[in-house]
Amino acid sequence: MEHIYSKYLEQATEALGTLPGIGKRTALRLALHLLDRDLIEVERLANAIVTLKQNVCYCSSCNNISDKETCAICENPSRDHSTICLVENIRDVIAIENTCVYRGVYHVLGGVISPIDGIGPNDLSIDFLIQRLQEQKINEVIFALPATIEGDTTGFYIFRKIEPFNIKVSILARGIAVGDNLEYTDEISLSRSIQQRLPYSNNIVNT
Amino acid sequence: MEHIYSKYLEQATEALGTLPGIGKRTALRLALHLLDRDLIEVERLANAIVTLKQNVCYCSSCNNISDKETCAICENPSRDHSTICLVENIRDVIAIENTCVYRGVYHVLGGVISPIDGIGPNDLSIDFLIQRLQEQKINEVIFALPATIEGDTTGFYIFRKIEPFNIKVSILARGIAVGDNLEYTDEISLSRSIQQRLPYSNNIVNT
Repeated sequence: MEHIYSKYLEQATEALGTLPGIGKRTALRLALHLLDRDLIEVERLANAIVTLKQNVCYCSSCNNISDKETCAICENPSRDHSTICLVENIRDVIAIENTCVYRGVYHVLGGVISPIDGIGPNDLSIDFLIQRLQEQKINEVIFALPATIEGDTTGFYIFRKIEPFNIKVSILARGIAVGDNLEYTDEISLSRSIQQRLPYSNNIVNT
Repeated sequence: MEHIYSKYLEQATEALGTLPGIGKRTALRLALHLLDRDLIEVERLANAIVTLKQNVCYCSSCNNISDKETCAICENPSRDHSTICLVENIRDVIAIENTCVYRGVYHVLGGVISPIDGIGPNDLSIDFLIQRLQEQKINEVIFALPATIEGDTTGFYIFRKIEPFNIKVSILARGIAVGDNLEYTDEISLSRSIQQRLPYSNNIVNT
């Protein structure tokens, strides 16, 4: 038990300690740091997180987070609205956007099927995806789900659901990451990269 | 540059990223985590940090943080008010309190002399310490400053200032930490622990 001797400091430490990856000691360090900052800066931080929670909503078109009803990506007329990239969450949207190579739109599932965490297909925005495929003119759905058992299961489940639409469905290439040594690559990734080897000319074009 | 596409998320990420040890990526992760939490919990966190900043003050007797004018340690009549432990900051008070072996009171300097950071003797509560020594009946001052060049300099400076009072001044023992192997102990600590070796009987009593 820590002897903190200040109710306010204890409460702030406890509240900060509920954040992921922030243990009791780090929380105390953060609280003492905030104590050294100007009140206006602390209020700015407090306002920013409350405003975030109060104002951010989910895009009515792709389920991505958004400040307005439709997110900036779905609103952008220069993006290819006939290609949907299916991702687990907002972090994945940001990761793909950071590559600057994708010009289509997204569909954020909000998770992957994971019975162990009690997440079933109905907890995800799968029906909403089906509705988009029915209502809009979609040429391709790109599965960009995590390369885990849960991601694969979710992908397979959704693939079965959208098979009847006769839409092109693709999946992110898996293989050796750039900079990886073969000897440290796991067997599954390495064997996939052998089976799905590419013409050498592709490699020249892409780099 | 991260493509976040939400002004609110960007502002929250930026504000969280100003905390020490929290980079841009962690800040984004924390912001997205807060987005998943209930509004009431986010407001609780926001209130806790603002309340902390607004209400915590410094003990008029020892400069420790406190919810009231006098901190809980200085207010406690069962503590030995004639022994002062001189520490750099509040974290050190908490560390010493956690050992449960010290029953005296504290004096929090608020830093150590560090010309490189622009901290001189006048930025610390040294005059306040002198005033305590003049006004109160103090038997011993224990220097519990960091074992760094800055800590040693500060200790020496203060020692010179309080020498005229003819008060017992002691310093925390330095040596091999419990659990340390000799071969990995730095030379200075090891040589000090040889020069300041203790009667074996002390060791039996203390463990």
